[in-house]
Amino acid sequence: MTQEKDLLETKISSEVIASGGMLTVHRDQVRLANGHQSQREYVLHPGAVVVVPILSNGNVIVERQFRYPLHQAFIELPAGKIDPGEALLKTGQREMLEETGYTAAHWVKLGQQHPCIGYSNEVIHMYLAYDLTEGDSQQDIDESLDVFQLPFKTVMEQIFQGQITDAKTIVAMMFAQQYLSQNPVTSLAI
Amino acid sequence: MTQEKDLLETKISSEVIASGGMLTVHRDQVRLANGHQSQREYVLHPGAVVVVPILSNGNVIVERQFRYPLHQAFIELPAGKIDPGEALLKTGQREMLEETGYTAAHWVKLGQQHPCIGYSNEVIHMYLAYDLTEGDSQQDIDESLDVFQLPFKTVMEQIFQGQITDAKTIVAMMFAQQYLSQNPVTSLAI
Repeated sequence: MTQEKDLLETKISSEVIASGGMLTVHRDQVRLANGHQSQREYVLHPGAVVVVPILSNGNVIVERQFRYPLHQAFIELPAGKIDPGEALLKTGQREMLEETGYTAAHWVKLGQQHPCIGYSNEVIHMYLAYDLTEGDSQQDIDESLDVFQLPFKTVMEQIFQGQITDAKTIVAMMFAQQYLSQNPVTSLAI
Repeated sequence: MTQEKDLLETKISSEVIASGGMLTVHRDQVRLANGHQSQREYVLHPGAVVVVPILSNGNVIVERQFRYPLHQAFIELPAGKIDPGEALLKTGQREMLEETGYTAAHWVKLGQQHPCIGYSNEVIHMYLAYDLTEGDSQQDIDESLDVFQLPFKTVMEQIFQGQITDAKTIVAMMFAQQYLSQNPVTSLAI
């Protein structure tokens, strides 16, 4: 097996080829491990947090949101970008409250995933949230979404039936299922 | 629950804000369901195919590849972009051969995932490949990767231990596991 250092690509220079709006895109000239020169383009992302909020009846709080790049609505978990300097847990709590109106007494860090390693530096941190309390959502004016509940098992079924295809949601549900199978929470009727 | 039509966002105009290299980025002016106007930026992507190649001994063929946007090497499944007009299965076969040198007698479509619905229109189609035959890989000159084998169970363990964080790989492994649990392949010692 090749050593990891033989795969290394090092930056020669970097330029911003798109910015000012939502996305910042960089183009870097890089030196490959074989000595060749190439270029790499990627989206610069602040990172995000996705939350699996589970009610005591075992239902998961999910959202249906229109995603313009694909011109279709997706069922997904509450999630959002990390604000500058914000602690990860705070991001999860803020996004869940803003989007769904719920707060949670218990938070468990499940892990992290990289959704798009080919052209983005985004990392998504995953949390499980339970012992929920319902309140009022505070959705952004540009963010239009339905919030509803689905039984945990139904979410898993909809994943394998191809109705839920959002990768961050699939990975977070898989981690929540694994965590709960090894750390059963008696207050959750899953 | 709100009807899906109330979430619809419609295009007013579209401009290309980055192109010519690897990434094409669009900025569209859109009309939101609430009548407000906003803008959406996204990466235009041709779609991709990821393959779970399983040897008869139950090992999965994986790769370690340096991913420049995150400046680190990732363990991931063989995958690549769909060429213009190319059939999905052909993409899977081509990418697996180019990257790993393997061909497969059996291919099973597992489903599809959307890795990055917030800012890319990428869809990733997932295949299981088995009854493998080893040959010579034909890696691109700009693509430097290690190819090696891991037991199926080890891949799942490395996912939950946080050593494998690439979302497309995690989702594809989850679908392969689900498929094989419902459609056992006696020639695979998993």
